[in-house]
Formats: sequence, structure tokens, C-alpha cells
Amino acid sequence: MKRQIMGRQEVVAIIGGRLDPGTWEQFFLRNNRGIMHQTTDTKAKGWIRKVAPEMAPPSLNDNTADVDRLIKGIRKVLPENEILFDFPLAREIPSILRKYDYQVEAVLFEDHDRFHLCGILPAAPDVSLYGLAVDLGSSTVVVRLLNLSTHECIDETSFHNPQIEIGPDILMRIHYAAQEGGLQKLQSLVRDRLNQEIRALCRKHTIEPTRIAGMAAAGNTTMTHLFLGLDPYWLCREPYIPAVNSPSIIKAHELALDILPGAPVLVFPNVGSYFGGDLIAGILASGMNQQEEISLLVDVGTNAEVVIGNSDWLMACAGAAGPALEGGVANMGMMAGPGVIDKVTIDPDTHEFQIRTIDHQAPVGICGSGLIDLVAQLFLTGMIDIRGKFVRRACGDLLREKDGIRELVVVKPEESGTGEALTLAQTDIDGLIRSKAAMFTILTTITNTVGIPFNGIRHFFIAGTFGSYIDPRSAITIGMIPDLPLETYVPLGNTSLQGATMGLLSAEARESIFRIRDQITYLELNVNQEFMNLFSAAKFIPHTDKSIFPSVRPVNPD
Amino acid sequence: MKRQIMGRQEVVAIIGGRLDPGTWEQFFLRNNRGIMHQTTDTKAKGWIRKVAPEMAPPSLNDNTADVDRLIKGIRKVLPENEILFDFPLAREIPSILRKYDYQVEAVLFEDHDRFHLCGILPAAPDVSLYGLAVDLGSSTVVVRLLNLSTHECIDETSFHNPQIEIGPDILMRIHYAAQEGGLQKLQSLVRDRLNQEIRALCRKHTIEPTRIAGMAAAGNTTMTHLFLGLDPYWLCREPYIPAVNSPSIIKAHELALDILPGAPVLVFPNVGSYFGGDLIAGILASGMNQQEEISLLVDVGTNAEVVIGNSDWLMACAGAAGPALEGGVANMGMMAGPGVIDKVTIDPDTHEFQIRTIDHQAPVGICGSGLIDLVAQLFLTGMIDIRGKFVRRACGDLLREKDGIRELVVVKPEESGTGEALTLAQTDIDGLIRSKAAMFTILTTITNTVGIPFNGIRHFFIAGTFGSYIDPRSAITIGMIPDLPLETYVPLGNTSLQGATMGLLSAEARESIFRIRDQITYLELNVNQEFMNLFSAAKFIPHTDKSIFPSVRPVNPD
Repeated sequence: MKRQIMGRQEVVAIIGGRLDPGTWEQFFLRNNRGIMHQTTDTKAKGWIRKVAPEMAPPSLNDNTADVDRLIKGIRKVLPENEILFDFPLAREIPSILRKYDYQVEAVLFEDHDRFHLCGILPAAPDVSLYGLAVDLGSSTVVVRLLNLSTHECIDETSFHNPQIEIGPDILMRIHYAAQEGGLQKLQSLVRDRLNQEIRALCRKHTIEPTRIAGMAAAGNTTMTHLFLGLDPYWLCREPYIPAVNSPSIIKAHELALDILPGAPVLVFPNVGSYFGGDLIAGILASGMNQQEEISLLVDVGTNAEVVIGNSDWLMACAGAAGPALEGGVANMGMMAGPGVIDKVTIDPDTHEFQIRTIDHQAPVGICGSGLIDLVAQLFLTGMIDIRGKFVRRACGDLLREKDGIRELVVVKPEESGTGEALTLAQTDIDGLIRSKAAMFTILTTITNTVGIPFNGIRHFFIAGTFGSYIDPRSAITIGMIPDLPLETYVPLGNTSLQGATMGLLSAEARESIFRIRDQITYLELNVNQEFMNLFSAAKFIPHTDKSIFPSVRPVNPD
Repeated sequence: MKRQIMGRQEVVAIIGGRLDPGTWEQFFLRNNRGIMHQTTDTKAKGWIRKVAPEMAPPSLNDNTADVDRLIKGIRKVLPENEILFDFPLAREIPSILRKYDYQVEAVLFEDHDRFHLCGILPAAPDVSLYGLAVDLGSSTVVVRLLNLSTHECIDETSFHNPQIEIGPDILMRIHYAAQEGGLQKLQSLVRDRLNQEIRALCRKHTIEPTRIAGMAAAGNTTMTHLFLGLDPYWLCREPYIPAVNSPSIIKAHELALDILPGAPVLVFPNVGSYFGGDLIAGILASGMNQQEEISLLVDVGTNAEVVIGNSDWLMACAGAAGPALEGGVANMGMMAGPGVIDKVTIDPDTHEFQIRTIDHQAPVGICGSGLIDLVAQLFLTGMIDIRGKFVRRACGDLLREKDGIRELVVVKPEESGTGEALTLAQTDIDGLIRSKAAMFTILTTITNTVGIPFNGIRHFFIAGTFGSYIDPRSAITIGMIPDLPLETYVPLGNTSLQGATMGLLSAEARESIFRIRDQITYLELNVNQEFMNLFSAAKFIPHTDKSIFPSVRPVNPD
């Protein structure tokens, strides 16, 4: 139960209020800080639709077969189009037509300029079709229920990925998949949980599951493989080959999803083992592929994935940034949840800590964005130096030593939700510095490669729910991201979900997905001497070269 | 065992010798009495093919996913084409590629101007793909194994349709299909037997079943429904609606056929409940749809199906002719088989019978073609009159009476294979006359409808194995078919099988199938006063109006 709430909370936290049904476009707008692009087009032409075939019941004057009668009736409504159908569906059609006395509606989807018949439902002109947009996160899966005609967001729900019981990290799951029945187990864990969520959504909104006529899902390459039952074995082995980059449209029944059996499932393609469909969804959601100005998109996490480009070109790379950015190494680090510190301010004079926690609960730990705030504030107030080392005279009583390692008491036992002090160790700071240095080095490398200076970047999009919590001011202070005007930074929230929503609702967006994929040049990061030099220079706060972070001014500079 | 032999014998009988492997075109030519048309084009462009994808194994320099790598490799060989693939196959591809070290060949079929990937096989440049042409007869199923590259006929085999155990006639099977599990039972009976035959053919010719990359099957509408597992319930109920007229391409695994799972199965479309894919195959095999001259095609059986037309138009009708034409009502009537009388000559002076039997065995019965010969000879020698009644003075001792019905001893007990006399009853002749009158009336009606006199017909094709046995001279004599020059009559043998072969081997033929279907106007036969008048006039030998049968001259005219 707690896990479910967490997912919701994350979304709610971004928009600072409850997510009302029907407001996803507004949600998206606010989230984008007012940047307008195609995602806000609720009138986008869809690619899944229903039509009422024009046909009379059979008679001696017209003994056309049932299936052919139906196809003819559909062509009267969609005259210019070829109507394709799968044989197993054809087998069902006669009894469905007769059951509803030839009063039916046909569900079709467009693919490669042809219409594919994917289901027959009893005629119900006033009942809509629905679709699901799914963010297939390795930690959290988010499901959004949408009305395919009005584009209204009906509901949104999320759950912790049950594959966590097999292994919290992706590599463990890949190894497990190689065991007898392992892949099937991993696939069914997510699928069964997803089906459970779908049934609950249908019950809650009194929707027939067969009225759910499409799904779009985006996830990283491994999650996509596990969701599709594709063997992920070669993803983590040189030369790191996915089974499939661009899946064709898959039918819901082929994945045993409890929706209309013939419903199309659009699974976002990947560029490689380390650059997945979630990032393609991010590019789509950012709209950077449609703008003349150059943008940069970063997904901040254990892996930092970066894309730079515009409507003409896109270059991407991915590199290990370390788990510190997600709060993964700090003693008190944890994922976002009630009581987790997500914002820290330190009074420059009194060195008093002002702490904000999620849901205003007593603090129990710190998440990545909180950690970035904390370290930035420690630096600005002179409590750590440019190497990130604690400055004894500035830290005073708060500094103590445990097992030979210095640590700073951030929350005293009496104020803590756990009853124990929450502390930040020197090693935690060291970890964060390595992570931020890796991130900055990756950003420097990719911009150097394309020859675009940081100030040539018009929008710096931060993808992913986690990234949205980061205060760009603090991230600049620690030298994780370049010192650009704050308005350059645009947190996009759950871009995987937003991209999936767009792909589900808009035929144009769906086409863009594959154009984006084909447009991307993937830059293989070579950890050579040059990279290591850049990395060493970035392992200071904000950097050895202060001139590239002019806005960072500690209160008590050395 | 005996049943199997029968099928082979039928084919052998037509060409008067053994069917050598590799000679199907010659077979067809001879069978056609020298008429040349597209079926003889062994260089026809196929629609099922294999290609060797141009691809290198993955490397760090090219980390394209396995499926995408394969598709790319195929596109290098087939550049102008879109390559589509089904998701379940995509799932298998990575392990297949790795198993064969990326040395594979891809099997594809063309449909709607796109190529569909249907299988991946280990590279074997010298090994061909094979295909099956199947005549789905309600009594006999004939299977022909063909080389898809050379178009060579490798083998041919046949078996009695095991659905006969459910019911010898189609109506009984339709009723059985409505029972719980009935349809599945009927479908699996044929499928299992067919799979058994396919396995035997593969063993015999050392062919991997996965090298069988396509099938084309033609049958009447009910047989097609049962083969596809389509409910035939409405076929025999007003307004006689098939489930499907034009099936899409079906994959072999969807029918549980033991060949390449993704292999396309082309099932011939039907025009209606009483005009099936076997007739479309017949039209295709005859080539009448490509000729300027007007041809007529008849499939002689319990139902008489007739098509008239040319490359511009086709009109079809079907009507009940009665079982007499297939030897179904005669006391001694039976289907073709060893010892069955298939030709009769009567000496006009001595009234001595000259009898030919299949396989030169002692006579055990008579088949439809033998019956037509017998009655024609009885008429020509004055042993029956124009009403078909026995003429006592001409029949002499051979005429006897049993249960108040007159009968003629055709074979004496001592010459019979059964040890008993083979006799022809007055009622048998009456039945045959009704059947031939029905046939002639149908022919008159359809030619009247289109306004073409009989002598405007350039070719009169006789479709079906059974029809091939009929001596046109005898059929004219009894007034079953019009009195046209004998060279007009072209027996085509098993046109269902021939059409299926063409559809399997030739992309152009395959397209023609659906053009033919759409071109046909179906004429609903109204059994009205006019029809009954024509029928009554035709119930004489050869007809009440002798002037329309000028060539029929009895030895002892009344």
C-alpha cells in the first residue's frame, strides 16, 4: 500500500496539488514552465478509432459473407483505405455480428497507411474508446487511463515494479532471466500486476476492459525486453546487442494483457542497450526534435543519459554517473517518500538547517535532490571546501567521527522520524562529487563533440520524475550542470509517461517516435585520457576553473 | 490402403500412365488436349521466396539489435520493399541468429505489395523451399508437393477425407459442427490426416518440414469453412451466408499445420455457400478468365456448378443435378475404384457388352462415367427408347423383373467380381435422366441469360476428376451436354488441385484469384415455370427437340 502511495505522491509533488481527472494537458503545461509544443495539442489526429460500419443484415438479395460484409461496411466509412484483418479475429466475427444483430462498431488502428481491424464491439455511439499510457520504470510503473476521443486523462495510478522482488537492479534481473523460466517469471510479474491495475481502473470508472483499445508503453531497453518477453541476455554482454530495436505493433493478446485482445500495443523503440524507449519518449515529450533552437535533454540517475540537438539532428550518449544522484549511497539516502528530505537551506550566519520533507513528516532520510541541496548549502556556507571536505571551524559541534570517518549531524535524534540522528558522512559527499563530476564530464564531452558551447543551448530539459525535484540553482552550485540562466532549465517530470501518452493519442507523435529513433547518432563515450582529465577537473565544487561557474559565490570564500 | 490407392489411380487414369515426378506441366498439357495457358508457365514469378540477408555479426562498431540487423540485411537484398514481421517471430529471431552464427536465410512472402517475414532458416543456398497445393475435396483430399524455385512437382498423394466417418455428405457435417466440439473435431480430422501425409512426404523426400514455406488450398465453401475452423452453421440456412468469402493470408501455425510455422496458407475464396474456392481454382486452371473467346466451365457432380464468360465477364450458377451423375443412385453404382466399370460399348448387331474396368479387375460396380456410357449405348442400340424405358424386344433375355421393377443384367454372376449379377434398374435410368436433364437445363438457362448460343462457346471445360472420365460423345448422346464439336470439350482433371498449384507458384495467378472472385456475377437459379418447361423437354434422350442434337443417331431409330 505504501508503495502505491509513493508513486502518486511523486506525481502530485511535481504539480503541487492533486492531479484532477481531465487536466493532464494543464498538468503538462505547468510542468513545462509554459513551454508550448505538440503535446498540448488535444486535437491531434489519433491512430486508433472506431467506426460504425454501414451494412444491412444478410438477405437472399445480398448473401455476402459476414466478414466480407463487415469489411465492405467499414470501407463505406473509410473509403480510401485498405482494411486488413487477422484470421483469428475473422473467425470470431460471424458470431459477434449475429449476437449484436449486425449492430456493431469496428475498432481499427492505422499502421503503415493501412487500417487494421482489431475488434468488434456492440454499437454504442455514446461510449468512448480508452487507451493506456504506461511508463515501464524499473522501480515504478505508472499507468494513465485516457479517453481516446476527448484525450481526457481519466485516471492515473502507479505501483512498484514487482520485479524488485527478483532484483532491485537491472543487472540482477538480466541474470535471473537466463535461468529456466526466469524470463517468463519476470514478464508475468509485471504483466499480472499491470492487469490487476487495469481491472481496478475499469471497475472504478465502469469501463468494459474491451473498450480499452490501445496501449503505449515506454521503458528502458531492459524493461522493454522483459515486458515483451525478449531475452535480455545480450544486453549486458559485449557488444551489448538488444534483441529488437524497433518492435512492430504488438497485439494485446500476444502479451496477455486484459484489454481488447486485438488492441495495438505501441512499445517505444530503443537506440541500444543503454539508450531506451524511455529516452525516446523524453525527446518526444520535450519537443526538442521539432525546434530549430538547440536543446539538451538529461535524464539524471545512476546512468546519465544525454541528448543534444534540434529538428535537424540529435546526438545521444549515456554514461555511469553513480547512484549518489538518486540518494543511493548516502548513509541516510533513500528514494522519495513521506518523511524524506527534499529541500535544505542553511542560514549563512547561524548555520541553522531549514529542512523540508515530503508530506511534512518527521525526517527519516534524504533523497538525491535533497542531497544536492544540502551539499550546495554546505559549500555556500563554507562548511565544506571546494574539495568537498568538511571545514571543522565552520561545522562546529555538528561534526563528529564514526569508525574513523567524519560525519555531519543534519537532523538531531530528537527531531528525527527514526529516533536516531540523520548524518552525512564525508564518504557520502565524496560519492556525490564523483557522480556530479561524471555528469558534468558527460555534458562537456557531448557538447564538445558537437561543437556547441553550453550557452548555445536554448533549453536544458531535465527528464524523469527524479530530476524534477532537483533545484537547478543547487545543481549549478555543486557544478553538476553548467552555469546557465535558470530559465534555461526545464524540468519535464515523467517524460516517459508523457511521451507514451502522446504516442497513444497522436498519429503524428507516433510517427515521430520512429523518426527520432532513426535520427539519433549514438556517441560511444570513450573513457580515455581526455575524459579523465575533464573528470578530474570536475571533481571540485563547483570546478577547478571557477570562471565557468561565475554565478556560484560562496558566502565565505577561501 | 485401398482408399489411398484410389486417389492415385484416378490421376493416373487421366494421363494413362504413371505420374512421374517433375512432369506436372506435361501432365497438365496433355490433360488439356494441348491448350496452352498460364499454368504451363513454369517461369512465373513466385510470391514466396528466400533471400540471404546481407549482414555481419554484431560488433562494438555496429550494435544494431538482432531483429533490426536482420531486417536491414534483407532490405539490402530487397531494397524497394517494406519488410513486415509479426511479433511472435521477432521474439525467436535473436536465438535463431546466434544458433546459426548469423548465417541464415530469410523466408518471405509478398502480400499487398509488402514483404512479410515468415521464417528464418539456417543458410543453405543449395536447398530449395517447397510448397503444398491441396485439393480439399469432401470425399478425397489430394496433396501435391512442389519445389517453389523450379516449380517441379516432387510428389502427389491423396487420402479419403476422414470427415466421412462423421458424415458422407456435407449437410451431415454441417449439422455435426453445431454440436459441442463438433467443429473442432471436423477440423482436426482433416488437419491431423493432412499433417500425417506431410510428415510422410517429408520423410520420403528427406525434406525438413520447415522448408515447406507455403500452402495453397482449394475446396468447396463448406470444406473451406471446416478446414479453417469457421462455423458452417449459416451455410445451409436461408439466406445462406458464409462466415468469410475472402480469407486473408493465414499463417500455418494458426491452422496447426506441421510446416514452417509462419508459412502463408492461401485459401481460395468463395462466391457464396454454393460456389466455392474449388470453382475459382477451376476458372484459374482453365484460363478462361484470360481469353477473349467465350468459354464455359462445368463441374459435374451432385451439384452442377457452371461458369460462363471470358476475360471481361464471368457469370456463374449452381444447381442440384442429383447424385446419378456420380453413380450415386444406380443399384450397382459406386465411386471410381478397382473393378469399377468406367467404359461400356454395346455391339449394335449382337447387343454384346464390351466392358472396361479400372485396373482390369473383374467388374464389381459402375461409376458415373460408366453409367453415362451404358445408357448412351443402350439408347443407340435401341435397347431403351427416348424416354429411357427398356425396349423388351431389343433387350431380350437380359431384361428381368425384381420387386415389380424392370432391370437389365449388365454383367452375369459368373463374370462378376462379386459373384452376383450386376444389374441396371429402370429406376437407375430414370434417375440419370433427371440428373442429365437438370444439367442441360442449367446450361440452357445460363447461356440464355447471357444471350450466348451453345455454338458461341469456344471451349467447354469439364472440371473435376470425376468429369474427366466422362466420354463427351456419350454425354452428348444422352443429351446431358450440348451437341458441339467434340474438340470443344476439354476435360481438365482435378482443377481444384491445378488451381491451387498455380496460386501457390505464381504471384500473378494468386492475384487473379481475387480478381476472378470479384468479377463473378452469381445467377440465382429460379425454379420457375420456364425452368420447369425446359427441364421437362430435357427429360428425353437426347431431348424432345431432336434438331438440337443432330449428331445423335440411334442405330434403330423409332
